[in-house]
Amino acid sequence: MGLHPDRLLPIEPEARDVARRLFSGVEMLPILSPHGHTEPSWYAENGRFPDPAALFVVPDHYIFRMLFSQGVPLEALGVPRTDGGAVETDGRRIWRLFAEHYHLFRGAPSRLWFEHSLQTVFGIEERLTADNADALYDRIAEALGRDDMRPRALYERFRIEAIATTDSALDDLRHHDAVRASGWRGRVLPTYRPDAVVDPERPGFQDALARFFELTGETETWAGYLAGHRTRRAYFKARGATATDHGHPSARTADLPAADCERLFEAVRSGRSNPAENELFRAQMLTEMARMSREDGLVMQIHPGSVRNHNAPLFARFGFDKGADIPSRTDYVEALRPLLAAVGNDPSVTVIVFTLDETSYSRELAPLAGHYPALRLGPAWWFFDSPEGMRRFRETTTETAGFYNTVGFNDDTRAFLSIPARHDMARRVDCAFLARLVCDGRLDEDEAHEVAHDLAYRLAKNAYRL
Amino acid sequence: MGLHPDRLLPIEPEARDVARRLFSGVEMLPILSPHGHTEPSWYAENGRFPDPAALFVVPDHYIFRMLFSQGVPLEALGVPRTDGGAVETDGRRIWRLFAEHYHLFRGAPSRLWFEHSLQTVFGIEERLTADNADALYDRIAEALGRDDMRPRALYERFRIEAIATTDSALDDLRHHDAVRASGWRGRVLPTYRPDAVVDPERPGFQDALARFFELTGETETWAGYLAGHRTRRAYFKARGATATDHGHPSARTADLPAADCERLFEAVRSGRSNPAENELFRAQMLTEMARMSREDGLVMQIHPGSVRNHNAPLFARFGFDKGADIPSRTDYVEALRPLLAAVGNDPSVTVIVFTLDETSYSRELAPLAGHYPALRLGPAWWFFDSPEGMRRFRETTTETAGFYNTVGFNDDTRAFLSIPARHDMARRVDCAFLARLVCDGRLDEDEAHEVAHDLAYRLAKNAYRL
Amino acid sequence: MGLHPDRLLPIEPEARDVARRLFSGVEMLPILSPHGHTEPSWYAENGRFPDPAALFVVPDHYIFRMLFSQGVPLEALGVPRTDGGAVETDGRRIWRLFAEHYHLFRGAPSRLWFEHSLQTVFGIEERLTADNADALYDRIAEALGRDDMRPRALYERFRIEAIATTDSALDDLRHHDAVRASGWRGRVLPTYRPDAVVDPERPGFQDALARFFELTGETETWAGYLAGHRTRRAYFKARGATATDHGHPSARTADLPAADCERLFEAVRSGRSNPAENELFRAQMLTEMARMSREDGLVMQIHPGSVRNHNAPLFARFGFDKGADIPSRTDYVEALRPLLAAVGNDPSVTVIVFTLDETSYSRELAPLAGHYPALRLGPAWWFFDSPEGMRRFRETTTETAGFYNTVGFNDDTRAFLSIPARHDMARRVDCAFLARLVCDGRLDEDEAHEVAHDLAYRLAKNAYRL
Repeated sequence: MGLHPDRLLPIEPEARDVARRLFSGVEMLPILSPHGHTEPSWYAENGRFPDPAALFVVPDHYIFRMLFSQGVPLEALGVPRTDGGAVETDGRRIWRLFAEHYHLFRGAPSRLWFEHSLQTVFGIEERLTADNADALYDRIAEALGRDDMRPRALYERFRIEAIATTDSALDDLRHHDAVRASGWRGRVLPTYRPDAVVDPERPGFQDALARFFELTGETETWAGYLAGHRTRRAYFKARGATATDHGHPSARTADLPAADCERLFEAVRSGRSNPAENELFRAQMLTEMARMSREDGLVMQIHPGSVRNHNAPLFARFGFDKGADIPSRTDYVEALRPLLAAVGNDPSVTVIVFTLDETSYSRELAPLAGHYPALRLGPAWWFFDSPEGMRRFRETTTETAGFYNTVGFNDDTRAFLSIPARHDMARRVDCAFLARLVCDGRLDEDEAHEVAHDLAYRLAKNAYRL
Repeated sequence: MGLHPDRLLPIEPEARDVARRLFSGVEMLPILSPHGHTEPSWYAENGRFPDPAALFVVPDHYIFRMLFSQGVPLEALGVPRTDGGAVETDGRRIWRLFAEHYHLFRGAPSRLWFEHSLQTVFGIEERLTADNADALYDRIAEALGRDDMRPRALYERFRIEAIATTDSALDDLRHHDAVRASGWRGRVLPTYRPDAVVDPERPGFQDALARFFELTGETETWAGYLAGHRTRRAYFKARGATATDHGHPSARTADLPAADCERLFEAVRSGRSNPAENELFRAQMLTEMARMSREDGLVMQIHPGSVRNHNAPLFARFGFDKGADIPSRTDYVEALRPLLAAVGNDPSVTVIVFTLDETSYSRELAPLAGHYPALRLGPAWWFFDSPEGMRRFRETTTETAGFYNTVGFNDDTRAFLSIPARHDMARRVDCAFLARLVCDGRLDEDEAHEVAHDLAYRLAKNAYRL
Repeated sequence: MGLHPDRLLPIEPEARDVARRLFSGVEMLPILSPHGHTEPSWYAENGRFPDPAALFVVPDHYIFRMLFSQGVPLEALGVPRTDGGAVETDGRRIWRLFAEHYHLFRGAPSRLWFEHSLQTVFGIEERLTADNADALYDRIAEALGRDDMRPRALYERFRIEAIATTDSALDDLRHHDAVRASGWRGRVLPTYRPDAVVDPERPGFQDALARFFELTGETETWAGYLAGHRTRRAYFKARGATATDHGHPSARTADLPAADCERLFEAVRSGRSNPAENELFRAQMLTEMARMSREDGLVMQIHPGSVRNHNAPLFARFGFDKGADIPSRTDYVEALRPLLAAVGNDPSVTVIVFTLDETSYSRELAPLAGHYPALRLGPAWWFFDSPEGMRRFRETTTETAGFYNTVGFNDDTRAFLSIPARHDMARRVDCAFLARLVCDGRLDEDEAHEVAHDLAYRLAKNAYRL
């Protein structure tokens, strides 16, 4: 038992040897985490993580979605209900339920992340079973009480060099201020995520917009709205932000005449907009954000293509982010054209595009990124943050876009303990891919070492301007 | 010559060894065939199979489509014309034509199925050629005259534990009754396939509907129509059916108010419906069938996405199922939403979805099945019932849906002799996939043995309630 | 350094051995190049190729698109501006810029083509670097001055047996006449490419149409227009053409009544057609061309799915073919139905379809080609003319369409020196694929040798009627 030392490397001995050499050169590199969802308060307050279930099961949609898919109610897993109704609160019982269904995770990346955390953070090499569930629970719970398990200690132990959080445009970033004021040497950066004041279809949009204008002191016009974004971006940038992030239903962008923008804004602001106008407003705003990126140097990230809250009964009961976000077919060729016409030929701009539609890699995204100076491809995302997903990403993008129009790895996680596991996985899969190129004569080994280093560290550092 | 003992296992020696061990544990397991198209009369009457051409060529669209694609007329292959016009009737000449074009099947799964049958059923290890065509024809023809080549003997020799047929909603299931009355221990189950009375665009729909009402004695209203389905489902269930099957052009589902359903039914019944109404009626009926499955416990299978009878001139001459059914792009995310809102969160319901659009595996189907308790993924289907197709199925679904939201293998065939070949292929490809997970450290070998057994036997048994 | 002798063959030793044996049987076969874009004037005039930059960088969109994507202006690479504005003219400086960015091509097929040319044509085994850029420039420039580097000498040295060019319907083919008149034994064939007079949305369409009628002496009616195509096709055929080629935005075909065609033609001819009519006209013309192919025996090639000139600012500055052509989602099932209804069942017709949308291989194109006698699949095209692209082509088409509904390899290039490199790559990748089939028991080695020969030579010879 325990982690296989050559896990995810090629099985063929010659290629495995090459991959081992490549991996040994990048395994211990610092971690750059330029896109993720950890809580800034963890670093500011440096409190203890709660019990094993609250750490590994309750907040992790990769885990509870799989259990739910096999008939385990979310209530039994302690997932809070929006109506405050009763759910399981006994961490040990939740943990046992997880252990009893542990076979469901065979072949899933979440299993590998979990076992990497168990072994490297808690020294546990046994496989979780119904039989040892209580014993492992106790070992983890005990460890979580130690000071070397607090967020700042783990940040250092994980060799994190910088980590970005994702923050609402309305956030005052007080936790980020607290981290900086504390004198701790960790580097925790905010990311400007304005979806709540950009997407008219998000619940609470009108209220968020009102607060946005209150906060920025601008007039409620299109010009005032844009000025407000500039103000807030500057506020984020002053606190270390190097990037913005945009989670839209589609990748559609637009570049309308000013008068149309004004009319569109007024429809949206007043709550009288229809779905087509909402989509158009989001589309226009991506182009506006891209132009602001050209002004202030913040890197722009676009995460499109998730149909959120697909399961209406579940959404009514448990709210957002409960594993019912489903990828959908996503077009980029026509969708990105207006934005690219505006900033795509400017090498000083960086727009990083992600996808949940793997068919777009070879057909659309690699050809676009292999042409436009401003465009870069984000790593395999979400359901594809996995060995097979990462392999397909390289196999379908490298020949057209090369390695240097990609931006290294993002862990994109709110599961703090899984961060080293995810970077370890990405480094292994990339080294495995490179080893195959070396062994079948497509790349020399000295070059592969350089590329491995680029993929693990330098590309993220450069693309995110860290 | 002869079958390679390690065929379809990994080439790399270490992985091949693991795969051999896994496969040896499942090779001899009984066959469950919960979805297929063999004739119930074969088991009822236990007659002899006809000559080699009538067994292997004339009825097998995998075979004659490939010959046709290279210019061999279907008439020369003995495929009957709808107008009763002359076609080749000499089995030996048809067989020779097949032999002369045998090279066309290089790399195709139908070649592997055929050779598996030749060797394991007829003891023939030679490759078919123009030179040995006559000799092999004679050997097979002679064997077909023996009693141990009759359907019931083969059923037993193939270690089939249960086999489902696919039967029209209007069928009286007399052959199934005869099998049960005969005292033979074989288990032959009907499957309720109501397409003929559900799809207004099928030729003969109005007549089928009239017979449906006659058969069930219900009034020709929406309520009577639904009641009729309940009656027929109960009739099938009483004769052993555990499942229904639905072959629709798309995966679209709907859940309309009762008044709309009544209006829609009246339009369809009276023959005045337009294409949009036809599509909506089929969509509504999938949701109705899902609700009936919740009532009566029949497992629901949805097979969408085939554009039937693409070749109009060929269809006019030879009718249905002549190799001119072409897959098309199929959406599931929005299409299945109404049905899933109705029954998707109920773990007591099982809806098994198939696809002919492989892009939907990682993007749509695995995320949906990895979330909704009622949803399971059917195996790689039709054109993808093949080594590469099965491999891609596992590679693109396992990381998100795991193994346990899939349902094992279906042979889906009307070619009785190919059943063991197809299960053999599926078991080998799954063991090969598992061996790779073991060798690169993603799964322990003891777990892989358990999963191999699940994929070969237990998942089908549980999913289809056998 | 230098090319790996086993490059692109399987890494696993047993499979590599088989692949080596297969490859040794096809490595030295003559090259058939039935679809490409070399200049007929090269063969007619047999002049010298210019300097290394003008040979390898300036005209090659695979090269300059990658440099541009990383911020290198096209002006600095010597790409001519449409306004005649100043661009770099010093070949040595362009070459240095290429050398400084050579790492961008790691993992890209263009790197392999380039290094194959360097080594086999110029005897250079060093990797290009900023340090050796000048020295290599000098060696290549010197070699280009030698007579054995002229086009005809290279044609012979490359063992080319026949090469097709692509020529406008308006071309007088004077260079082809000159080649034939010269007594040189090389076989250079024109290809009829009528897009300029078929696509109403091409700049200059009205002028081209006027010249077409002038050239053919036909009346400006639908009937005259079709007669004009027949005349021009005969002109091409008399000069050795065996094929036509059609580069359309989509694969849509139509087969309208004559009166509709006449109205449509009049709208298009008079410049009053709208986008829907333009699309319909192109669609109709594909079916007309297919019918003419049935009459005159020219093989028809359809290259759909490229969104041309995606980057409007770049197009304004540099014009066509500057790396901003982006693939898009392409449908075939409904799109090709009218054409296939007209000629698809005729084995005497050959329609070769290409795609830039890999999702269509297994879902649409292989099932269509595995059924219709007239349909064949072109090789992996453009962005997919690469090791991974070719591998995916075989993996997703072979099981359904077999090898014999494909047509061998096309280099599709205007980069003359890369022709042997591209055929070498295709032969290696196909032998690697075949070796895997042999090693996992799907094909016998004697058959694999025959298939390797077919893929490298015989299929192209037959499909293109060479």
